[in-house]
Amino acid sequence: MGVVGLDIPAEPGMPLEDIATPALIIDLDAFERNVETLRQFITANGIRHRAHAKTHKSADIARYQMEKGGACGVCCQKVSEAQALIAAGIKDVLVSNQVIDKRQIAHLAEMARDARVIVCVDDAANVDALSEAAQKFGTTIECLVEIDVGSGRCGVEWGAPTTALAGKIAQSRGLKFSGLQAYQGSAQHKHTAVERKALIDVAIDQVRQTVAMLDAEGLPCDIIGGAGSGSYELETASSIYNELQCGSYIFMDADYGRVLDGNGKPKSDFENALFILTTVMSKTKPGLAICDAGLKVQSVDSGPPVVFDREDLEFMKCSDEHGVINDPADSLALGDKLKLIPGHCDPTCNIHDYYVGVRGDVVECLWPVTARGRAY
Amino acid sequence: MGVVGLDIPAEPGMPLEDIATPALIIDLDAFERNVETLRQFITANGIRHRAHAKTHKSADIARYQMEKGGACGVCCQKVSEAQALIAAGIKDVLVSNQVIDKRQIAHLAEMARDARVIVCVDDAANVDALSEAAQKFGTTIECLVEIDVGSGRCGVEWGAPTTALAGKIAQSRGLKFSGLQAYQGSAQHKHTAVERKALIDVAIDQVRQTVAMLDAEGLPCDIIGGAGSGSYELETASSIYNELQCGSYIFMDADYGRVLDGNGKPKSDFENALFILTTVMSKTKPGLAICDAGLKVQSVDSGPPVVFDREDLEFMKCSDEHGVINDPADSLALGDKLKLIPGHCDPTCNIHDYYVGVRGDVVECLWPVTARGRAY
Repeated sequence: MGVVGLDIPAEPGMPLEDIATPALIIDLDAFERNVETLRQFITANGIRHRAHAKTHKSADIARYQMEKGGACGVCCQKVSEAQALIAAGIKDVLVSNQVIDKRQIAHLAEMARDARVIVCVDDAANVDALSEAAQKFGTTIECLVEIDVGSGRCGVEWGAPTTALAGKIAQSRGLKFSGLQAYQGSAQHKHTAVERKALIDVAIDQVRQTVAMLDAEGLPCDIIGGAGSGSYELETASSIYNELQCGSYIFMDADYGRVLDGNGKPKSDFENALFILTTVMSKTKPGLAICDAGLKVQSVDSGPPVVFDREDLEFMKCSDEHGVINDPADSLALGDKLKLIPGHCDPTCNIHDYYVGVRGDVVECLWPVTARGRAY
Repeated sequence: MGVVGLDIPAEPGMPLEDIATPALIIDLDAFERNVETLRQFITANGIRHRAHAKTHKSADIARYQMEKGGACGVCCQKVSEAQALIAAGIKDVLVSNQVIDKRQIAHLAEMARDARVIVCVDDAANVDALSEAAQKFGTTIECLVEIDVGSGRCGVEWGAPTTALAGKIAQSRGLKFSGLQAYQGSAQHKHTAVERKALIDVAIDQVRQTVAMLDAEGLPCDIIGGAGSGSYELETASSIYNELQCGSYIFMDADYGRVLDGNGKPKSDFENALFILTTVMSKTKPGLAICDAGLKVQSVDSGPPVVFDREDLEFMKCSDEHGVINDPADSLALGDKLKLIPGHCDPTCNIHDYYVGVRGDVVECLWPVTARGRAY
């Protein structure tokens, strides 16, 4: 009957207009420019980049970051994510998080047969559990001690608590002490450069002193990792961090759009490459339009999306399947398409099964969100 | 090697403790009691119930609601959702939303070969497009005119605009005018009974007058539908609505937990049956515990989750993969499991691939979220 099924939102070759909405689309030109911008930065600065796959959960994008973007490997946050990426051929994976569950620890140890597997720890009993599993599977799990450099989340204190845990790892069979995880997550979205620098300066100082203490104890760090898309220039300039972990730089989002540079202008190193394509589905009231993008295609934890390239329109609020757009000039008509810049890219990508890769106004590829649903 | 894979979070027969977390779990006893409570209510009041599958997107749950819960059919919000449910054997589906996209309209028309298919309209040109597609496929699409009874979203005004659109449907080949969609969404979560009644009274009045006008024009309504889990008693008491559309009643959530009855007490018709099972993954700071449930397993649009049965603990905030819990007595230890009541059930279920059905402390079933990712 000639109608393309709705099990997928689009097919390569389709015009943009024919994508079933709401859909998550990537502007491939902008995405590729973002990857190239960071590649040039790490090359010029002689620092490694371990691309954070928590942003996209896509094997296609992870491979592109490693093959074209100079990434030395990937980070992810969950063992089941790592499994999906390793199964798709990624061979160097840091689970930049604690792994506590016995079944997940067993899988982590088993995966180390097929890939370099690194994990973060902040607890001595957890070190014992990891060691036991690695011995059982006859593998080596590399461990980073996570320092809480100010996020108030996971991680031990810098200095003595960190060196004690590092020493325990170094003495544990099946484990290798590989360095430090020192990610300052709460600095990434601080809007002013002064705020970001103040937080990262504290982190750098703690890391520098801890590395010196570890060196004195004969515990060198292969990886001193951290840094996100909002702060990576600062960690790089420290000369103590040696591995960046940027994720959002490939896509950007509305909240990153509010991050300013040292001159108080919007930071412009990366471009918006990720959008929710939406259709006006109801236009019955003056000054308002209802679109088909609600809470089931985006996370609004960091505020609503921004309508791309349409300063005359404001996305006001959304319910499960509807978005309410302020359209004061009544410029929108039923069926019109809009591109929304998601408020927060990572948890928005996490909801979708596919990225629709678009070049110009034509669909070029359909990339599955490989590790979708893999939250554990 | 004996380790159950991480492609699924659990297997039937497993103890609760072994579920890979974070996972979405259903307390099957509570779920079944909720379904039975509403069945008794509709039986006693002689009103139909078209269960809203937007809440759960699950064919297993939809079948249970029809076979055991007295539901006459289901609602859903998207054509691709309807496709997934019809393919799973559900034969009476209302897409309680506008369908604008040409490809989606074609699928809607085609699906009417295999099931009773009903859709909402609020635009005359959309009626023409639906009529054309139904004629092409040789099917009948039933149409409800959506009245905006106060939600400020989709829908035409009650009275003359509604009767005009109904008349146009009745005269369109391939379509059947089947009644009214009059759902007052913004009333559902109003916390006081007085607020809810004030809003629903307005809706009832508009519906009653419009139905009288339609009757006078020889346009009887087979379906006069609306009502959610927060207001269904009011629409039922009106004697003008004849089809309820409750969804959340099967699960409840933290925001529904703040809805009060006429005496100012928490409304107690339904119980919490849906939880996020989470594990304490880091405990390095006094007064705090970090759990593994963040933004990638829940929607926080209606606020954070509530820790079930633990008034001493408060879920403070979350980032992508972490939840920060206030634990003033330091009662939690690494590896402890907690049940979280999601802030908002529908967009939380939408993120997960599976429901883990639990009876007591044993996993009984694994239900796929059949229409997951079907946002279009």
